This record gives sequence, C-alpha cells and structure tokens, in this order.
Amino acid sequence: MNIVPIVNTNDAVVPPAEPNSDLQGVISVKDNDSLAARLAVEMKTDLLIVLSDVEGLFDSPPGSDDAKLIDIFYPGDQQSVTFGTKSRVGMGGMEAKVKAALWALQGGTSVVIANGTHPKVSGHVITDIVEGKKVGTFFSEVKPAGPTVEQQGEMARSGGRMLATLEPEQRAEIIHHLADLLTDQRDEILLANKKDLEEAEGRLAAPLLKRLSLSTSKLNSLAIGLRQIAASSQDSVGRVLRRTRIAKNLELEQVTVPIGVLLVIFESRPDCLPQVAALAIASGNGLLLKGGKEATHSNRILHLLAQEALSIHGVKEAIQLVNTREEVEDLCRLDKMIDLIIPRGSSQLVRDIQKAAKGIPVMGHSEGICHMYVDSEASVDKVTRLVRDSKCEYPAACNALETLLIHRDLLRTPLFDQIIDMLRVEQVKIHAGPKFASYLTFSPSEVKSLRTEYGDLELCIEVVDSVQEAIDHIHKYGSSHTDVIVTENEKAAEFFLQHVDSACVFWNASTRFSDGYRFGLGAEVGISTSRIHARGPVGLEGLLTTKWLLRGQDHVVSDFSEHGSLKYLHENLPVPQRNTN
Amino acid sequence: MNIVPIVNTNDAVVPPAEPNSDLQGVISVKDNDSLAARLAVEMKTDLLIVLSDVEGLFDSPPGSDDAKLIDIFYPGDQQSVTFGTKSRVGMGGMEAKVKAALWALQGGTSVVIANGTHPKVSGHVITDIVEGKKVGTFFSEVKPAGPTVEQQGEMARSGGRMLATLEPEQRAEIIHHLADLLTDQRDEILLANKKDLEEAEGRLAAPLLKRLSLSTSKLNSLAIGLRQIAASSQDSVGRVLRRTRIAKNLELEQVTVPIGVLLVIFESRPDCLPQVAALAIASGNGLLLKGGKEATHSNRILHLLAQEALSIHGVKEAIQLVNTREEVEDLCRLDKMIDLIIPRGSSQLVRDIQKAAKGIPVMGHSEGICHMYVDSEASVDKVTRLVRDSKCEYPAACNALETLLIHRDLLRTPLFDQIIDMLRVEQVKIHAGPKFASYLTFSPSEVKSLRTEYGDLELCIEVVDSVQEAIDHIHKYGSSHTDVIVTENEKAAEFFLQHVDSACVFWNASTRFSDGYRFGLGAEVGISTSRIHARGPVGLEGLLTTKWLLRGQDHVVSDFSEHGSLKYLHENLPVPQRNTN
Repeated sequence: MNIVPIVNTNDAVVPPAEPNSDLQGVISVKDNDSLAARLAVEMKTDLLIVLSDVEGLFDSPPGSDDAKLIDIFYPGDQQSVTFGTKSRVGMGGMEAKVKAALWALQGGTSVVIANGTHPKVSGHVITDIVEGKKVGTFFSEVKPAGPTVEQQGEMARSGGRMLATLEPEQRAEIIHHLADLLTDQRDEILLANKKDLEEAEGRLAAPLLKRLSLSTSKLNSLAIGLRQIAASSQDSVGRVLRRTRIAKNLELEQVTVPIGVLLVIFESRPDCLPQVAALAIASGNGLLLKGGKEATHSNRILHLLAQEALSIHGVKEAIQLVNTREEVEDLCRLDKMIDLIIPRGSSQLVRDIQKAAKGIPVMGHSEGICHMYVDSEASVDKVTRLVRDSKCEYPAACNALETLLIHRDLLRTPLFDQIIDMLRVEQVKIHAGPKFASYLTFSPSEVKSLRTEYGDLELCIEVVDSVQEAIDHIHKYGSSHTDVIVTENEKAAEFFLQHVDSACVFWNASTRFSDGYRFGLGAEVGISTSRIHARGPVGLEGLLTTKWLLRGQDHVVSDFSEHGSLKYLHENLPVPQRNTN
Repeated sequence: MNIVPIVNTNDAVVPPAEPNSDLQGVISVKDNDSLAARLAVEMKTDLLIVLSDVEGLFDSPPGSDDAKLIDIFYPGDQQSVTFGTKSRVGMGGMEAKVKAALWALQGGTSVVIANGTHPKVSGHVITDIVEGKKVGTFFSEVKPAGPTVEQQGEMARSGGRMLATLEPEQRAEIIHHLADLLTDQRDEILLANKKDLEEAEGRLAAPLLKRLSLSTSKLNSLAIGLRQIAASSQDSVGRVLRRTRIAKNLELEQVTVPIGVLLVIFESRPDCLPQVAALAIASGNGLLLKGGKEATHSNRILHLLAQEALSIHGVKEAIQLVNTREEVEDLCRLDKMIDLIIPRGSSQLVRDIQKAAKGIPVMGHSEGICHMYVDSEASVDKVTRLVRDSKCEYPAACNALETLLIHRDLLRTPLFDQIIDMLRVEQVKIHAGPKFASYLTFSPSEVKSLRTEYGDLELCIEVVDSVQEAIDHIHKYGSSHTDVIVTENEKAAEFFLQHVDSACVFWNASTRFSDGYRFGLGAEVGISTSRIHARGPVGLEGLLTTKWLLRGQDHVVSDFSEHGSLKYLHENLPVPQRNTN
C-alpha cells in the first residue's frame, strides 16, 4: 500500500500548478492540501492521510452544541456540512481539505483527515489509520445501506426510553411474543443457522461449531428461559426502594429505572441474542448487540424477530444489531453513547473488553480463582462431597474450585487420604503449592503460580496453619469470586464469612452455588467481580439504576434555612416489600 | 537538560573500552548499556533513559506471583532484587542494565529504565519521563523517609479490612474521638493552618485563602458534622439486604460491605480531610487522601489526628495521606490498588480526574445543568418563588438552575412579566435561547450554547411548545442532574417525572433540594451523575457494596440436578427494615 501522510501546518505557501487534465474537475494547487491530493493521485496511492490539529470533519462548526465528527464522508453528503469561518485554524482550511480530499477520491485515492497532534487511539495515528481503526474522517465513494453506529446508539437510547415508560405487563408481553416467535419461526432460524454452519465448516474447531449450532430443542429451552425472564420482569423497573417525608406535602421517592444503553458483546453462540434481548426488554434498557462474525446469518434473523416482538408496542428500535465496520474496541470507546458493557463469552473476551473499555463500566468477571479451605475441624463426611462437586461437576465453569487449602493438622490423616483418593478416581491432576510440596517426600509437580484458573480437571493444593492464614492466602492469590470454608466450628466459619473479602463466601457448601439461578435471582445477567454497582451473581437488578422523584407544592430551600419557617422532617415512609415467590 | 535516550536492542556488540578512572568502581563497556552509561557520564548528562522491552526493574522475575515493578531504586536496595535467568530477554540483560545504571548514578547521572515498545502513559515515553511522570524504574541516590504510595495502598487495604470487621459502635467511637480531637487540639491545628496561610499569602487569591483558612467556629461545626456521621454509621456496614432460603438448611444472605480502598482527592479546603476520614471510617473503607499542596501543614496535623483516633481500635493505618512524588494523574492509574475515586472540589477537578482515571470508577458530577420547565398550567404564585430559590439562593451550587424552559402560551402573560421582573430585581443576567430570541423584538444576548453551566447570577431562557418538547430539550442539552416541572396539572407532572431521564426529577420544588442532607441521607458523600452504582445525592450507602454469604451443611449442586434428590426452594425470608429516625 502506498501511503502519503501530510502534516498540514496551514502556513506553507505552495505555488499554483497545472491541474491534472485526466480528472474531471480542476484542482488548483494553492496550498499543501491540494498539493498532497495532486501528489497522491499522481503516485496512484491507495490512501492519503491528512493530519491536522482537529479530529476531522464535523457536521457543524466544532464546539457548537450539535457538532458531531463525521466518521465516513460520502461525496453526495457535501451539502450536509456547514463550514464555519471563525475557528482559530480557519474552517476555510477544512473546506480546502475537504475539496482536496474529494478531488483525490475522484482520482482513486481514499483519504482520511485526522488529528496528528493528539492521537486518540493508541498514540500512533498513522498506524491506527492503516490498521483500519476508527480515527478521523474517512472519505469513501461507497455509502453503506444501514445507519451508522452513532445513529444506532441514538435509536437504542430513545427506543429504550420509550420501552422504559411502558407498563411492566407490556414489556412481559413483548418477551412472550419473542418466545413464541422462536418456536413459530423455527424453520427460518435453523435455515439461517445452517448457512453459518456451512460457512464455518472446516474453519472452526468442533466445540466452536457446537456452540454455533442451533437446534429445535435449543430453541425450545431458549423460549422457556425467555418466559421465565418475562415473569421476573414484573417487579423490576419502577420499584420504590425508599420513601421519605421531607416536609409536609414534600415527599421523596427513590425508584428503580433502567441504566440506559447497554452494549452486549458475545461470541459464537447465537442463542445469546434472544436471551440478552429479553433481559434488556425486561429491564427497559436500550441495547446494542455485537455478535461474532461466524454467526452473522443466525444473528440477523434472531435480531429481526426481536424487533418484530418489540414492534407490538411500537419500540422496535430499542434493540440494534451492530453490523458496521467498527471493531469491538471501537465500540468500547463510545462512552457518550453506552452506559454499560456486558461481555458474554470467554474470560479472554472479558479481559480484552475490560482493557479496551476506557471510561465505560464493564460488568463481568475475567477470572474465577475459587478456594476451598478445609479447616482442622472439618467433617470427614462432608469434605470429599464438597470438593468433588466444586471441582469435578463442571470444571470449566468460573465458579469451579481451583485451589484447595488444607489445614496442616489434616496432613497424613484419613481425611486427607480420602480427598486424594477421590481426586485420583476423578482423574484430577494435582499441583502442589510450595508449602505443601515441602511437606511431602514425593510431591506432585509444583505450581508455577498460585494464581491459576485451570478450568479443567486440575487443582492446586496448598497447606495453611490457620483460618487467618487461609484468608491471607485468598486475599493475596484469589480473584474475589467465591471462597468456601469447610468446618464444624461455627466460630471459625463466621470469622471466615466476615473476613474474606470476596463476592461470595460460603460455609459448608459447594463453590458451584455461585450462580444467579441457584441464588434465586430469576433471570441471570452474569457474575460480576467488580466492587462497584453489582457484585457476584447478578439478576435483572444489575441492569437497573435509580432516580429520585420529589413531589412538592411550592417548596423552596430558603424556607428551611436557620431562620426559615419550616423544619426538615425526614420521616422514613414504608415501602412495598419485594414480591415473594 | 541533557538527555541521552538509549534503545537497548540486546544484540549490539560493542567493543570493550577503558573504564573511566575518575569514578569509583570499574565499568567494562561490553554492551550498549555500559556504553550508554559511560557516554552519559562523560557528557555530564542529567538523565540517562534506557528503553527496553520490559516495564522496568521488578523485585522478582517478572511474571512470578509476587513480582512488583520497582518505582524508585536506591543503590542500597540492591540485595532486595532477585535476578531471574530464564526470561526471554534475559534477566542477565536487566542485571547488566542495573549495573550500568548504578555506575552512571555514581557518576552524577540519574537513570530511568522503562519500556520503549509499549509506552504506558500518553504514548510518548520520553516526554513522560522528562515531565517526571511515573514511568519505569527511576534510579536515585536519595531515599525518601516515608512509605511508597504502593505500600500506603496496601496499608489502607489491610487497615480498611480490619476497620470493616469492627463493631459499628467501635467505628462510631473512633469518629467521636476524632471529633473531640478537633476541638481539644484546636490550637495546634490553627497553628499549622496559620503556616499554610502565611506561605500562601500573596500567591493565592482572596477566595482561595478563605477556603484554605480554618477557624474555631469551622472546627466546631466540623466536629458537629462528624458526630452526625457517627450516628448515621450505625446502620451501614453489615446490613442485610436480602435473605433467601435456597433449600433446607441452606440460607443465602446479601449484606452490605465496604467497597475497599477509596482515593479522595481534594483541593485547598483542609476541612475536607476530617469529614472524608469520618465517612471512610463510618463505611469501613480504607482511604488514601491526596490534598492540595497549599494545605500541607494543616493536612498533616489533621491526618495525624485521624490516625490517633483510629488507633484506639488498632486500625491506625486504614487512612493514609499521600505525600510522595505522585501527581494526581499517577494515582488515578493505580487501578489494582484503588476501588473508587472521589474528587471533592471544582467541576474542573472532577472533569480532570474523570479523564485521568482510566479503569477506576469516579464518583462525582462534573456538570450541573439544571432545568426548570414552567408549564402552561403553572400557578402564578409558585413560579416566581421557585425560580428565585433555584437560581438566586446560591448560584454557584451544582444544583442551581441554569435554564428556564417556558411554555409558549405564557409569553406576554402577567406570569411571564412577573418572572422577568423578579430576575431584574435579583440582578440575574438573562441569555436568550434561539427560539425565545425569535419571539422577541428586542431580545437579550443570544446564548452561545444551550449546554452552559453559568454558576452565577446568569440564566438562559428558552421557549418550548409542550411538556414533550421540554423533555426533549432536557435530554439533549441537560447533564442528567436535576430537572423540575412547575405545573398544577398532575398528569403533566407525572408524565414529566416518569419520562425525564435524570438523577433527580422534581415537581413544584426548587432544584436546590437535590442534596444529601436535604434528602435525609445523613452524611453526604456527594452528588453523582453517573448511571452506575450511586446516582444523585449519595449518602454513606454510596461507599458500600455487597457480598453474598451462603451457610449450608454439606450442600452440593449435583443433588439439585434433574435427577437429584433436592429441589430449590428460593423462599424470600424477611429482612430487618431500615431504621426509621
């Protein structure tokens, strides 16, 4: 690729030159923009990069209330741009750049106008542009059919706001309708899915193909899940959490409201789409969906069905499927448009998103390094059962056991032998922590790191001297996900429950209970190891925030001042209790 | 300043050279590190920058569980570093670099070893280092007396965890003791404050000096405020929010716990320190404090008093005052150490912190563009009162009115004239929105932006045609802080309350009620316009998160599988109601 980067200093004086007669239109080379365009076309370069001290081309003079950066500019859009004249660098300068860019485009050279002084993405503006990242304004001949991602964000915002003002029954109706469509339109869905599978054949490994594939039974159980979400949605938006009488006829209410616009990023599994759509509908949030490329056909039809269901109450646009050129990391930067990002997929995906999402909160967990501490007073009968369930039932889950901490007094006891025997039978590979290894004559391979999530039939065993040492170990090497104590000593158990600083802390129960469904939260949104907003297994509530409503008559604060006529009452008023099942 | 940046490629072969005999010790130039050191000392440069492909010098081989980047390295610390040998780039290479760096340091040249391939801060590693930003490992002769900020973070974390496990009464006791100390040690505090004031004299403007200055009455009211915080702290940590019976003898509890470590950044006002300390103590959080340089003496003594109070229950280290070389933006990057940042100061400070704090949530509001919509059915008597209180009572507050939206039908009515007359009397400067201007023959100056926070006796007036248009205007130009409708029409009011997507939405009440104290939240932490975690006025609850405690007997999930012996009960159990005042 030939690339000509031009830094426009706005002060170079370039003598006029003859226009290139091969091209329609005339470009008189009177500044370095037109010179660059001319040069780029002459050299038949693929891309001309014009670096300036503004971000790119805006639809109104930058700094004005409505000014938005134009991501892709098409020659036909020229009339939609107003050029100001008062800017410091001169919008005339931008007009000249646009003229030069359009001329170059006509000559077969694509153009990007971007800021060279404060590179936005990685600090390397030219590399970013060449890698196709969303930087500055890209001049293109081809106008894609659909809306831009910014337009989709606005549609999701306003559609979501309409969704939020529906009655809970109406939102439930939409979800039920979507559940019906999943079974009614089964043939079309499976046909689209078949296309995806055919295209993926040979390119994806068998487990990934399995994740990608839909079936009648998958669709049926998906529909059942959606109906459960509909049921639990009744009590979500608009729930009163707190009521206070501030003064006579001045009442304050804190109510639950949707967060706003969610971005859900999911990998190959297309069954994620209806499920996430139902969660967004139940909680009244606008939704941007970004699915994996391998599921394009499946996602397209599932999204159409979601919109069909939404349209029964006129809120079709609340859910948008992003199909534009933006990569996931571009979307993660749209902090004015997106209020919360939820990655659904591998822990690698979550880690990548957490890294990319500067300024937007991400709900999820990238690691589940769960511990079980077997106390000196643990019951022989319980330990083996609990360890087996925690490690072997589904070792790939984030709530599976990774490190077993054993009190030193238990070494070389029948209980210890029983655990080891069970692990052998279950074919669990044992790694030894440094202290454990030092106690053994012949030890299993020593761990590389005590901070490992095996996600498989592997387990680290380490020895500790006390509950306190177990807690210290968990704080140092854990991921604050789920940690368990096994003991018959209630005092030790309560000490552990109070002191371990993790999202879930259990006594004599399997780590695997750490799950929204098992916790009885209804629809499961995910598990969060963040300490802000939602923590641990998250139900629909994790998709809600609150607002304060104050109803007065003509109340002003100056009446409550030191010498004013009124006094604050601040009486807590009763709130309706949460529905019990 | 002379700077020699050296990019170490690890493959350059440099012939040995004679050591510089002026220096103690011998350096044999056998690689480009030693060559660079030699050259830098010969040229008497101030700083030698060695760029490598690792972040700098770690105290253990990078990648091992405990490896930490050494921020500042002192010659005396050499024994505390273990050099690995197996790393891809060769830790021998790092050993050589350290040797060269120490040699250069002895020769009077400071050294930074940093990563040149993935610059961490702004993307410009050399600029960052020259500007004194915290990048890589800095080699210095002088060892500062206090702990590093990383050590302070660890102390705050473990001290906070101890604080969290105290009884609520013990935390309240600490706060009461701090309140006592503020009055008992008044003379020492005022003496320290006098030093700050003397040093600031002539360098700070009068209003800033006023903010900096403490007085007996300020200390007294501070002590009263602290006792209020102590009172409201009783019901914060450890409150049960939810209880569920999952199965027989398997009970789940969701309880409030502290967030972890807070970083509070405050500007000149030293009275912030005891207040924030009390909030952290009440909520059981560890705390890092970063105050303004101009208040150094005052902050130091106030911090000592906070630690004195904490030590009555052995948790002195839970609150740390950061005095190291780190700038605010360096602290904002310590995402593994800090769970929440709270800026207390100007909206500019909040904006700067929000920008700098990548990856750590920030609680605060950078803008308060509050609206009042005067409906066509507004009561004449109420409007003037409400507008005056909202705009004129304290115009610098974030909850003061900035934009008055008036229904078109009210133009040229007595009500309209009454509002304008009142604003004239109160000397409020009026700016006209574009539609309002177009209705008038002689209009006030047209606004530059409808998105302006005046923070002064200035106000924008705009005309709207309906409640819906008022809502659209607020969504487009507002900051989701506080917005009010004035009307006698209950239906219009409820529509406005439900549809406006702001933290606080009021009916016939002044914008100025948007405040933690006025809302009856007890201790006020701040006002948040974030949509995640806490929203609107935030009390102590904003400093809390939750954890899940599960108490079982020997419960495993496989017993609950399809063919298992147990079924989930998921019974909601009653929770204690919130204390009423």
